Amino acid sequence: MFQECFHHSPRSNWAYAYDMETIHLRVQTKRDDVEEVTAVAGDKYDWGSFNEELPMLKIATDHFFDYWEAEVKPKYKRFSYIFRLRQGDETVYLTEGGICGDQPQPVAGYYEFPYIHEIDLFSAPEWAKSAVFYQIMPDRFANGDPSINPEGMAEWGAAPTGESCFGGDLQGILDHLDHLTDLGVTAVYLTPIFKSPSNHKYDTVDYMKIDEHFGDKDMLKKLVHECHERGIRVVLDAVFNHTSENFPAFQDVLRNGEQSEYADWFHVRTFPAEVKDGIATYDTFGFFGQMPKLNTANPKTKKYLLDVADYWIRETNIDGWRLDVANEVDHHFWRAFRQVVKEAKPDAYIVGEVWNDSRTWLLGDQFDSVMNYPFADRVLGFFADGMIDGRTFSEGMNNLLMRYPQGTNEVIFNLLSSHDTPRVLTRAGGNKLKLKLAVVFLMTYIGTPCIFYGDEIGLQGGNDPDCRGCMIWDEERQDRELYDFYKLLIGLRKEHSVLRSGRFRFLKADPEDARIIYERLGEGEHFTVWMNPTGDRTVLEHAMNTNDWHDALTGDHAPAENGVQKVELDPWGYRILRREL
Amino acid sequence: MFQECFHHSPRSNWAYAYDMETIHLRVQTKRDDVEEVTAVAGDKYDWGSFNEELPMLKIATDHFFDYWEAEVKPKYKRFSYIFRLRQGDETVYLTEGGICGDQPQPVAGYYEFPYIHEIDLFSAPEWAKSAVFYQIMPDRFANGDPSINPEGMAEWGAAPTGESCFGGDLQGILDHLDHLTDLGVTAVYLTPIFKSPSNHKYDTVDYMKIDEHFGDKDMLKKLVHECHERGIRVVLDAVFNHTSENFPAFQDVLRNGEQSEYADWFHVRTFPAEVKDGIATYDTFGFFGQMPKLNTANPKTKKYLLDVADYWIRETNIDGWRLDVANEVDHHFWRAFRQVVKEAKPDAYIVGEVWNDSRTWLLGDQFDSVMNYPFADRVLGFFADGMIDGRTFSEGMNNLLMRYPQGTNEVIFNLLSSHDTPRVLTRAGGNKLKLKLAVVFLMTYIGTPCIFYGDEIGLQGGNDPDCRGCMIWDEERQDRELYDFYKLLIGLRKEHSVLRSGRFRFLKADPEDARIIYERLGEGEHFTVWMNPTGDRTVLEHAMNTNDWHDALTGDHAPAENGVQKVELDPWGYRILRREL
Repeated sequence: MFQECFHHSPRSNWAYAYDMETIHLRVQTKRDDVEEVTAVAGDKYDWGSFNEELPMLKIATDHFFDYWEAEVKPKYKRFSYIFRLRQGDETVYLTEGGICGDQPQPVAGYYEFPYIHEIDLFSAPEWAKSAVFYQIMPDRFANGDPSINPEGMAEWGAAPTGESCFGGDLQGILDHLDHLTDLGVTAVYLTPIFKSPSNHKYDTVDYMKIDEHFGDKDMLKKLVHECHERGIRVVLDAVFNHTSENFPAFQDVLRNGEQSEYADWFHVRTFPAEVKDGIATYDTFGFFGQMPKLNTANPKTKKYLLDVADYWIRETNIDGWRLDVANEVDHHFWRAFRQVVKEAKPDAYIVGEVWNDSRTWLLGDQFDSVMNYPFADRVLGFFADGMIDGRTFSEGMNNLLMRYPQGTNEVIFNLLSSHDTPRVLTRAGGNKLKLKLAVVFLMTYIGTPCIFYGDEIGLQGGNDPDCRGCMIWDEERQDRELYDFYKLLIGLRKEHSVLRSGRFRFLKADPEDARIIYERLGEGEHFTVWMNPTGDRTVLEHAMNTNDWHDALTGDHAPAENGVQKVELDPWGYRILRREL
Repeated sequence: MFQECFHHSPRSNWAYAYDMETIHLRVQTKRDDVEEVTAVAGDKYDWGSFNEELPMLKIATDHFFDYWEAEVKPKYKRFSYIFRLRQGDETVYLTEGGICGDQPQPVAGYYEFPYIHEIDLFSAPEWAKSAVFYQIMPDRFANGDPSINPEGMAEWGAAPTGESCFGGDLQGILDHLDHLTDLGVTAVYLTPIFKSPSNHKYDTVDYMKIDEHFGDKDMLKKLVHECHERGIRVVLDAVFNHTSENFPAFQDVLRNGEQSEYADWFHVRTFPAEVKDGIATYDTFGFFGQMPKLNTANPKTKKYLLDVADYWIRETNIDGWRLDVANEVDHHFWRAFRQVVKEAKPDAYIVGEVWNDSRTWLLGDQFDSVMNYPFADRVLGFFADGMIDGRTFSEGMNNLLMRYPQGTNEVIFNLLSSHDTPRVLTRAGGNKLKLKLAVVFLMTYIGTPCIFYGDEIGLQGGNDPDCRGCMIWDEERQDRELYDFYKLLIGLRKEHSVLRSGRFRFLKADPEDARIIYERLGEGEHFTVWMNPTGDRTVLEHAMNTNDWHDALTGDHAPAENGVQKVELDPWGYRILRREL
């Protein structure tokens, strides 16, 4: 066995409490190198009385490694453990102290899970596990109240620029809740709505005021209430990394320099705060002098921002916050933020904007979820670009799944496009069939899916600002066939809990072959999804020892012959089969 | 190259801020497999203007891996990065997105260090980096006030049992401060001193009261003051995982069951709280019914314990807390604990009792340090047991060093014995030469050393309670030669900052050979330490291109001939050489 490839790390995504009774242990071995892995676990204070051997299941494989998992339910909330790995006649033990041939005496050198603390548990809101999100940029969604149109507005549907405003507002969203209800989404995420000079409003001037071109607090209350009536949750965007240069505190710093009572609200490197040769003398978002970075470690700044987070939940009953540029804000702030938010609303959902590996923020003390851009990269790289084979795709997805605990994977914010990326149909080169495959994958995969407004009716657009076009409300100009497809897949996901919480596994993912089969398996139900991300008609085969599969969308029986299931697929075709257990 | 052995993980011991300007990056490769590693780093918002290539240094090697490190000083507190690895003609890039042959376009798929936040920095007190600790069990150190002797006391020096009390007290410590000053220690850690029925006092009855057999608050104040006058810091033991069954709140739970106002102060699984068939119906330390586990997540319990932590610092000016069974207490509690303690005294030292991998507690938000039992295991396994060769020893030590960031390694609480292990001389089979080698290593290694009271005068003792014998004050019965040796080594460490903060590296650590050479290298000074952990006289040789080495203890010149330094060593002998840079 390649012992240098063995990996486990205590108290991490390799060993975590899934709930108050259950700890998941994971071990990495070199791919196809180890036959059997067993967790040997017991109570460190009385190993003799309380110990057991738990066979581990190979739950994922990526380019280099196999990943094994076991569930431990310790009698007294604590246990020590090691792993026994076997290949043929060779058996070794992986311990915290190293690798050895014989089982070491318990428990010196053993790994340890000291105690399951409820307060330290990663626990995202239950509703998020079943939610289907819909992301809205208010300025671009619908203009419901022309009386608050901004000046110099562009014509609805014109090509967006970095500056153009289109007059969308909260009333516009309210007017189109039927669209959301009909589509089947159960949560909306609105990009920022607080007072701001820009069209995107990621540069806040007043955190306590809804932008006057979007509406006011009563309007937001009404919107949230109406959404709740329809079973739709509402998440707002918190931009706490930086403000607008017009934020009064920063203006005070510009005016009064080091003497300003807000001097420590920002990260001014040298006073006066100014932009010299294109570089600000204060820290900024990116290199944008007009977006000064907030000093969230300053207790006054921190309190102000936490009050903002608390205020909008208590005043308007929103259901959570999406956190802009969350990775550049300090961890102490986010820990306090979580406490404030969960006190105001225990089942509020907190989703951070972190494009990279996000383990640091997902330990249970900060976020419930992050925007899963690595998911989008891999899914679109496979279905839209078509540059990788099924095996490479499966390796990428499995690698990503193993990055986080299961509880995180169940609520991670999976998306195909957003206001910061090209739209998915554009990314697919306008090929609707490719887009559909990506959406089928999104809707049958583990994690909380989100649809970017307009993707469901065929909006296109490249990088910002092009992807931020106006919603089309004229049904004649909407792609209704695509809309019905989205609706169908959303409905399927909502109807079958196994698509949300069942075990995910690739059944076919081969080199030099883009065709894949995967399954979701859980209590009472079993799904297989067959996909043909190629331009050729094909027949996919897979060994099946039952003959009770039906098409999940049409209900047609999908017979197996001689233990083999054959599924015929059109170019870029897919089929979703289901059976009851 | 064995790509499956490449490892890096963002925002961890593989990528951390050492100070506000400096980030350390580490990469793992298979041992002897990669020739050159380069970090490629730049600002993600303006890679074109701000990027650089940083050669990485191979800083450690263990059984399977080489470890490479580079220091990055980003211009704007943030950067993205990847690694270039080369062996012969083969060059690959390690990125967050995977391994590739060509450098990917910046910065999608790059690792990221989003921003250096001072508040998130791991920052232990400066004094701890230079401290030499001395651990005292007050009942066993010295009886300074017979008027507060416990009843039924054992005779000083009798063999300790689990129950015996010997009458040691705070006055006794005060009386013997000259011993500490003469020995050269700069900090003491006292095992628990609060009111408790046991001799070890790890089962507290009243956290607000010094045990009446040890003294009172004024006595503690006086002791701390006198210690401070001598430049000695004082750290107390906080037993917050559990209490005594006689702790009033628990007594109330025993009496009033679920109706008790303290019912939620503990983890009672089923009421009534009782011990049935040897198993308590409430969670305990180990399986000891007389030590009920505290519910530190209960806000009232939490506040009570945090007030205790705060009170003793403010009232008596102690310099920190050692945390008993720290791994079994929740992380939220320890985060709040750190805030309270550092507010009361910004340079207080917090050292947790965690016997295992302690990364989870050493991220900057909880502890400054942990008791480094894995250090003791490895050092005594080598010097005392003599069962492993130099190479295996070096692998174990390097592996341990790579577990934590450098800032942690500089203040980790290195010990050879404690009240929970056999005494070091006993562990060495009574062989004082072996003990001395272990002490030389302790005093010339990276980390904060601690001496268990009495080890310096030759006390012996096996596992608890045997290791907890009474201090011997009769100089005739002390091993004064050993004492002078300890004093010499402590003095050496204190005199030369390079022994505290210089780079550590093995120069010789070979298979089937116990003889080792290692160096400490820093600003202005360079040490080499030569050790012969065998029963045979030997001559050690090592290539040296300078001839300016002197014996650090005697001052004798240690000439090199033809570029080779030869050092003659007695059985279990050592020599410490030094040169100025």
